[in-house]
Amino acid sequence: MLSQQDVPGAVDEVLRDFFATSTVALDTVSPTAAEAGRALDDFVLGGGKRIRPLFIHAGWQCAISAADRPPAAPSAQATEALMLRVGAAIELIQACALVHDDILDRSDTRRGRPTVHRRFERLHERLRWTGDGAHHGSSVAILLGDLALAWADDLVHGYRPTGDAPLPPPLPQAAGAAWSQMRTEVLGGQLLDITNEVSADESVDAAYRVMEFKTAAYTVARPLQIGAALASASAALSTDLRRIGTDLGLAFQLRDDLLGAFGDPAQTGKPSGDDLIAGKRTVLIARALADSGPVVADRLRALLGRPLSPDELADARTILTDSGAVAAVEAQITEHVDEAQSLIAGLDVAPTARADLTALAHRIADRQA
Amino acid sequence: MLSQQDVPGAVDEVLRDFFATSTVALDTVSPTAAEAGRALDDFVLGGGKRIRPLFIHAGWQCAISAADRPPAAPSAQATEALMLRVGAAIELIQACALVHDDILDRSDTRRGRPTVHRRFERLHERLRWTGDGAHHGSSVAILLGDLALAWADDLVHGYRPTGDAPLPPPLPQAAGAAWSQMRTEVLGGQLLDITNEVSADESVDAAYRVMEFKTAAYTVARPLQIGAALASASAALSTDLRRIGTDLGLAFQLRDDLLGAFGDPAQTGKPSGDDLIAGKRTVLIARALADSGPVVADRLRALLGRPLSPDELADARTILTDSGAVAAVEAQITEHVDEAQSLIAGLDVAPTARADLTALAHRIADRQA
Repeated sequence: MLSQQDVPGAVDEVLRDFFATSTVALDTVSPTAAEAGRALDDFVLGGGKRIRPLFIHAGWQCAISAADRPPAAPSAQATEALMLRVGAAIELIQACALVHDDILDRSDTRRGRPTVHRRFERLHERLRWTGDGAHHGSSVAILLGDLALAWADDLVHGYRPTGDAPLPPPLPQAAGAAWSQMRTEVLGGQLLDITNEVSADESVDAAYRVMEFKTAAYTVARPLQIGAALASASAALSTDLRRIGTDLGLAFQLRDDLLGAFGDPAQTGKPSGDDLIAGKRTVLIARALADSGPVVADRLRALLGRPLSPDELADARTILTDSGAVAAVEAQITEHVDEAQSLIAGLDVAPTARADLTALAHRIADRQA
Repeated sequence: MLSQQDVPGAVDEVLRDFFATSTVALDTVSPTAAEAGRALDDFVLGGGKRIRPLFIHAGWQCAISAADRPPAAPSAQATEALMLRVGAAIELIQACALVHDDILDRSDTRRGRPTVHRRFERLHERLRWTGDGAHHGSSVAILLGDLALAWADDLVHGYRPTGDAPLPPPLPQAAGAAWSQMRTEVLGGQLLDITNEVSADESVDAAYRVMEFKTAAYTVARPLQIGAALASASAALSTDLRRIGTDLGLAFQLRDDLLGAFGDPAQTGKPSGDDLIAGKRTVLIARALADSGPVVADRLRALLGRPLSPDELADARTILTDSGAVAAVEAQITEHVDEAQSLIAGLDVAPTARADLTALAHRIADRQA
C-alpha cells in the first residue's frame, strides 16, 4: 500500500501526465493558448505541500484498514490509482483558488515567485503589448484559474481534455457528493470572507465561520472524507473523520493566522506581516480587537490594510501579543489538536493509519510555513 | 418526445430546481454567501436564449431518430431528463463565461442590465462599504463565475452541492469526453482572444481561429455532439453533426460581428457599436483592415477601442461597408449556412429532427440580437 511519504511524488506524476494531455488539447486551439497554459503547469508543479492529497490518502488508508470495512469493498490495489487521481484533482482546485485569490488580494508574490497575474503583467510589459498590462495579467489569471477548475473535474471523473476514453475506475457516489459539497463550501467561504472584509465585520464569529468553510472543510475535513469514500468507508468512520478534519482544519487556519502576522518570510515565501498589510479579518486579529481597550483597538485598526514600516509592524505585533490574542489562538490550536488526537486514538483502523494521521496533525499545528 | 419549443422552459425548470438546492448549500456556509449567490440565479434565469441547450436537444433528437441507431440504445424517455440536465449545465458554463468575460471586457451592461461585477460595485457604494468598490465587484464576480463552473460539472454528473445522492442516469462516456474537450476549447479560445488583442494581431486568420474555438465549437458543434452522444449516436452521425455545428457556429459568430458593429441596442441589449468601442478583433474588422488602403485602415484603427461620437461611429460603419467587409462577411454567413443545410439534408434522421435543425440554422444566421 502506498505510504504517506510517497504521496506527493505520486500525485505529481499524475499531474505531469495530465498536463501532457492538456497541453496537447490547448495546442490544438493554438500554440499561444498552450504557451499561456504552461504557466499553470509551472505553478502547480513548482511548489505546494500537497497537504490535501495527504489527507485524501490518510482518509483512504483509514477506510482500507477499518475494522468495520464491508467484506465486498474494493481492495487498496483497486482504488489506489483513483485516490491519487482525486489527490491530483484537488491540487487543481487549489491552483484555481490560489490564482484567483491572488487577484482578489492583489498579491505580488506566492511561493517566493511572482503571482500568475503579475507574471502576465510583466510579460505584457516586456513584449510592449498594447493596453493595460495589469488588466491583461488579471484577465489571463482569471482564465487560467477557470481552466484549473474545469480540469479538476475532468480528472476526478477520469476525463482528459483531449477527449480520450475516461480512466477507470469511476468515482464512487459518496466521494462525488463530498467533492461537490467541498467546492461550494470553499467558494461560499471566500464570498463570505471578502464580504466580511468590505463590510468591516470585525467579530470573532464572522472570522471563525470563514475559517470553517474556506479552510477547515476544504483543506482537511472533506479531503479525509473523500479519501475514505474512495475506499467504501462506513458512515460512522466518515463522520469521525469529518470531525477530526474540522478540528485539524481549524488548527491549520489558526496557525496560518499566526504565521500571517509573525511568520518568517524566508520560510513562508510571503512578505513579513502579510495578513496585517492585506487587512485580513483573521480570528487572531478579531480576538485582539475584541480583547483590547478602545484606544489600543483603534491603534491596531490604523495598522491594518496598508504598507507598514518595520516599527509599525513591530507595534502591531506587540498589540496582538499584549492583548492576549496570540496566547488565546495558541491555546485554541492545542485544544483542537487534542480533540482530534483523542478521536484519532479511538479509530478502529490500522496502527499505520492512525500514526500517519497523527503525524499530519502535528505537521499542521506546528508548521513554520 | 420533448419538442424544440418546450426546451427553454424545461431547461429553466431544471435550473430553478438546482438553484433551490445550491441556495441551501450556500446558506449552510452563511446567509451572506447565499445572498451573493442569488445574483447568479438572477443572472441565469433572467435572460438568455438557451441556444446551447437547443443544440443539445437537436443533436439528441437526431440520434434518437437516426436510421443507424443501435437497437439496444436507451429510449428517448430514458434519456430526456439527462438531456435537459446537460442543457442546464451548459447554461451554467455560459454564466461563468459571460460573468468572467464582462470583467475582461470591462462591460457595464449585459442583457440591458448592469453586469454582475458592476452590480456588486454599486452594492458596495450603496452600503458605503470600505475599500475599492470596483475591485470588490470584480472579486465577487470572479467567485460567482467559479461557482457557476463548479455547479455546471455537478449538474452534468448529477450531483447537487447539498450532497444528495446523484441524479440518474450517469453521463455516457462519449458525452463526458466531448464535455471535457468543450470546456478546454472555449477557455483556450478566450486565452487566444485576449492575447491577440494585446499583441495587436490584426490578421483574419487569428480572428477566425478564436471564432472556431471560442464560439463555433462551444456554442454549436460540441452541444450537437454531446446531445447526440446522450442518445448513443453512431460515430458517423457524430462526425456529421460536428461538421454541421462548426459551419453554423461560424455563421453565428460572423452574425455576431455584424451585430456588434451595426446592431440595434434596443434589440441586442448592448451599446451601439459595442465591438468597435471595445476594440474587439473580429473577422469583420480584420477583413476591413486587410481590404482597405493604408490611409483608410489607419482611420479605422483610430476609431477602435475608445468611446465614439455618433459621427465617429457612422464613419467607422462606412469604412466597414465601403471596404467590402460587410458584404464579404454576409457572403461567408450564407456559405456556411448553405454548407450546413446540405449536410442536414443528407442526415438519415426523422423529418422533425431535420426541420428543427434547419430552423435553428436560420435563427442563428438571420437573428437581430
